[in-house]
This record gives sequence, structure tokens and C-alpha cells, in this order.
Amino acid sequence: MEVLVPFSTDRPKSRLSGVLTPDERESFARAMLRDVLDAIEAAGGAPRVLSTAPIDVDLGCPVDVDDRPLTAAINAALDARFDGASTDSALVAVVMADLALATPGALRELFAAGEAADVAIAPGRGGGTNALVVGHPAFRVDYHGASYLDHRRLAAAVGASVGVVDSHRLATDIDEPADLAELLIHAEASADESGAARWLRDAGFTLDATDGRVGVSRE
Amino acid sequence: MEVLVPFSTDRPKSRLSGVLTPDERESFARAMLRDVLDAIEAAGGAPRVLSTAPIDVDLGCPVDVDDRPLTAAINAALDARFDGASTDSALVAVVMADLALATPGALRELFAAGEAADVAIAPGRGGGTNALVVGHPAFRVDYHGASYLDHRRLAAAVGASVGVVDSHRLATDIDEPADLAELLIHAEASADESGAARWLRDAGFTLDATDGRVGVSRE
Repeated sequence: MEVLVPFSTDRPKSRLSGVLTPDERESFARAMLRDVLDAIEAAGGAPRVLSTAPIDVDLGCPVDVDDRPLTAAINAALDARFDGASTDSALVAVVMADLALATPGALRELFAAGEAADVAIAPGRGGGTNALVVGHPAFRVDYHGASYLDHRRLAAAVGASVGVVDSHRLATDIDEPADLAELLIHAEASADESGAARWLRDAGFTLDATDGRVGVSRE
Repeated sequence: MEVLVPFSTDRPKSRLSGVLTPDERESFARAMLRDVLDAIEAAGGAPRVLSTAPIDVDLGCPVDVDDRPLTAAINAALDARFDGASTDSALVAVVMADLALATPGALRELFAAGEAADVAIAPGRGGGTNALVVGHPAFRVDYHGASYLDHRRLAAAVGASVGVVDSHRLATDIDEPADLAELLIHAEASADESGAARWLRDAGFTLDATDGRVGVSRE
């Protein structure tokens, strides 16, 4: 299954600006991207990065450049895939580049849900659409706002069945400082620390539960 | 499978004090408890509430009263179950009363993980232990701090295998105002609105995405 991974090179991860410099945010965003690409490949997917600008490193997979906003860029890719091919059974997945907790197992569940329904969605915390599989030729995306509910409505409008993937790992996009704790918690639970978790540790971040709730602190 | 559901009658849901009065928090906490009990029964579990004080309404299941802190009360229940019965294959689950997004399907996955490993854990966002199945006679809980990691260490210390349940629904305990949005989002996506979601709507809460992120507002 082809898996599009949208990636913005323009001020990535701005909501982490309180804890990371611009250069650090760029480096961390790329570490997460690499982890997501690795997990997709390990799950049997064929990743393709959809970047807002050229990326000057080899990611080991194709990179398409499209500087339009997310929704327009994804819909152009869906147009190219589905127009005139409505009898084709091809599936296209869209997986966000900041799903640093994504494992091959969680992505295999996503892909299986995409085989079973016309549209499969892994909702994010806060009602976003963190990952998606599209198998219906008439379905198009709209990532504005609470896109999980919008995508359900858009699927219903074109008669597409919807499958939902209930995964904490896929629901957790790494957007704000509290999410860094989530990444470190699950890295600590795993024998195989991800690149993004290692990046955080190398940058001095550790789990901090001193106030009763788990966050991160930096040395 | 017996499923213990700890419930505190003493100032429940204090982190919702910015948006709900004390009486409302008590009423909302009970609505969530009822939803959790219903989901457990629908998943084939036998719920038993472990309350810090008597509850003056009929919950349709046994209620044990134990006014000790959570860890002590759960460990006393595990002692009673496992002491002198180490050859028994009995399993005990512990499911938090504020998992208002829990569905029978998510709980069936938890129970199945408990059949497959000595200890099964559904980690909560922030590293808590939102749901647990104990099948190893020597395992005891410690809910302080980032208990998910502690419970993994405690399981390893007694030679118990650990299964992890990756579920957004089980990872989402309803603790703070942002969690109310999560409850309303998934209620809107479902044809069958839960009692807790209905309670929120009746209290005037609606989803609000006006600032670009999804929260709740109250009429």
C-alpha cells in the first residue's frame, strides 16, 4: 500500500517553541519523520513523503514536493490516484509525520482497517485525523478543524463505509511539550528506543514526575 | 472475569472544578461510572465497584466499601483473590471509573490480553495505568506517579509477562476540561451516545473549534 507522509519544512512543530529552538525543532521533526517512515516500511507499506519543499537528505523513499496547504496537496494526490481508475482497488494511506509512537503493529491495524472499509481513520486526540486509508474513489480530505468528524461526514456523503482504528499510539501526534513525555514513557517501556526518543534524550530531556503528573525536564 | 472498578466518593474529578460545581462533578462522575459498568457487562465482565464510601443508589452490581487509598484497596482485593490460590487460573481486572470512552470492544481486547499474558496493561495518557488484568498471584499494584512504567517493573520483578493494550479509548481518562471535548467528539461519531456524553450535553456543553483547536464551551 502506498502511504503518503505529509511533511512541512516551514517552521515545523511551532508549538514546541517553548522548549526547542527552531534548529532543534527542525532536527527533531526529521527524527520523527524517519521513525514514521521506518515503521511504515516495517508494516509492509511503501512510504512517499509529500513535502512542502525539497529535503536535502536521503530519506530512503520517494519525496514529492507540493507547496500547497495540506488538504489541497493530499487531494491532488488522491485525484491523481483515483481519477479514471474508479474500478481499481488501489488504496492510498496518509500518515502524519509526527506520529512518533507509531509502531509497525499499529500501522498494520490501520492498513487492515483500510482493506475492510472504504475509508479507515485513526483519530487523533482532539479530533484530528492522524492516519487515514482511502479506498473509495470519490472521497477527498478536509483537514481543517476537527477533521475526524468532518471526514466521517464526507465519507457518508459519498456513500463510503468508515472503519475506525482505536490506537493510543496513532492518536498521539507529537505537538506540544506534554507529548514529549508520552514519547519518552513509551520509549522507556520498549527495548527498541526510537530515533526521536533518542534525539530527546541526547538533547537532555528526561521524564519528570516531581509534581505528581508526568512531564519532561531538560538538563 | 471479575472487574474491580475503584470509585472515590470524596471530591471526585477535582481537576474539573473550573468548569463544573462540586454537585455537578459528583453527578458527572456517577454518569461515567455507570457507562463503565455497562461497557464491562457488555464485554462479558462481572463488575464490582470498590468505593471509598457507601453509594446511595443501585448500580446493578456489587459494591465493596474500602476507605483506604487506591493502591492499598486494590492490593487487599488481590490478596484476597490470590492468597492460597496460586494454582487457580482466576483473573482479576481493574478498570478506572472515569474511562467514559471505554467500549465493550476495547474492554474485550483488554480481557483477551489478560488471557494471553500474566499481566495486561492499558496505559493512560501521561503514563498512568487506566486498566489492568492480573493473572499472576505475586503481582501487586502501585498507582503512584507514572504507574505504567512502575507496573512493568513490578511485573518483571516477580517474573510475570506483560501485555500492553494500545487503545485511545482506554488511554483517555476524563480528568480535565480538554478530556470533555474528547468525550463529545467520540459520542458524536457514535450512533449510541453514552450517559456521560448525554449528561454533558444536558449541562450545556458543546464542541467548540473556534480557536482552531477543539475544546468545549458551555451555554
